[in-house]
Amino acid sequence: MDTTTAIHQRRSVKHYDPDHTMTEVEIQALLELALLSPTSFNMQNWRFVVVTDPEKRAAIEAAAWNQAQVTEASILIILCADLHAYEDGARYWVNAPQPVQDMLVPMIEPFYKDNVQLQRDEAMRSIGIASQTLMLTAKSMGYDSCPMIGFDPQKVADIIELPEHHIIGMMLPIGKALKDANTRGGQLPFDEVVHIDGF
Amino acid sequence: MDTTTAIHQRRSVKHYDPDHTMTEVEIQALLELALLSPTSFNMQNWRFVVVTDPEKRAAIEAAAWNQAQVTEASILIILCADLHAYEDGARYWVNAPQPVQDMLVPMIEPFYKDNVQLQRDEAMRSIGIASQTLMLTAKSMGYDSCPMIGFDPQKVADIIELPEHHIIGMMLPIGKALKDANTRGGQLPFDEVVHIDGF
Repeated sequence: MDTTTAIHQRRSVKHYDPDHTMTEVEIQALLELALLSPTSFNMQNWRFVVVTDPEKRAAIEAAAWNQAQVTEASILIILCADLHAYEDGARYWVNAPQPVQDMLVPMIEPFYKDNVQLQRDEAMRSIGIASQTLMLTAKSMGYDSCPMIGFDPQKVADIIELPEHHIIGMMLPIGKALKDANTRGGQLPFDEVVHIDGF
Repeated sequence: MDTTTAIHQRRSVKHYDPDHTMTEVEIQALLELALLSPTSFNMQNWRFVVVTDPEKRAAIEAAAWNQAQVTEASILIILCADLHAYEDGARYWVNAPQPVQDMLVPMIEPFYKDNVQLQRDEAMRSIGIASQTLMLTAKSMGYDSCPMIGFDPQKVADIIELPEHHIIGMMLPIGKALKDANTRGGQLPFDEVVHIDGF
């Protein structure tokens, strides 16, 4: 599907065919594309938890105020991030020419180490970017999605055994839509959102 | 361009043709697509500042440690967010059926009002999502882009007259590539980044 069409047609869909399953090949292809999303310093700080186990899905639904798309969609992806991805930065540049490695790698840790807010900003930014890769890829595969922040993050963290210094940024059910999204709720005027040269 | 191709071909490009200009029609089309990016509660909390003025571009380049793509790219977009977008939520749902408005609108302000960290998370998440819409759209229009966080945010805020309770999340030069990106620096193994059912 054309990029422009995917952007236009991507909507947050709430109703999914609970009998539809995605193949392992589809799930792999979807996530391989997500892994091409850019991250600062190529840190790849996102971590994706694909929840397929029905008991865990039910527990997560309960932690998300019983929103049915959590269990009815074909897959559920929990988008997490490692807040300490800035450590051991050499692994992100192993294929770069040596002078590039020598310049970039020593910059990473000092940039983040003592800045907890920046670590968290980076988590949310990277998760945001990767989530749109997933949503547009899903749309282009004939699926829909529903980005969600309405859940108890601590309960979901317990269910997926989120490690220390990791954070959850979003949940993303993906599946076969049973019912289209409503029309868009109310778009702000272009000139309220886009400014030229300054506010 | 096919969505999958755009995701594969999108790379962070540093070298742009400084003589190339994008037409106003192209810039408008690019941003109209960005405005279709999802946001929590449809808050549309992003604000996009398109910097065309050469003096401002030069000043921003100086605030970004003289990275040449800031002035050499055809346009520079500063992705900002309104941290108080949760106020006056009725405008985001004017086209929704009345029962939907009655349910959703009163939820927005209490969800964010006393949670400064969540306001900021939402800014970064929305900016991340919209930035990928912009990067993939740019690619599909034959352009390249370079997401940037390496700049002095206070200096750039002064240049674009960023209002109170707004924040800058990223800068995005977009233009005609003069030189391809290097090969990818070093992709983490799939199994290190993707987990099934839990960590």
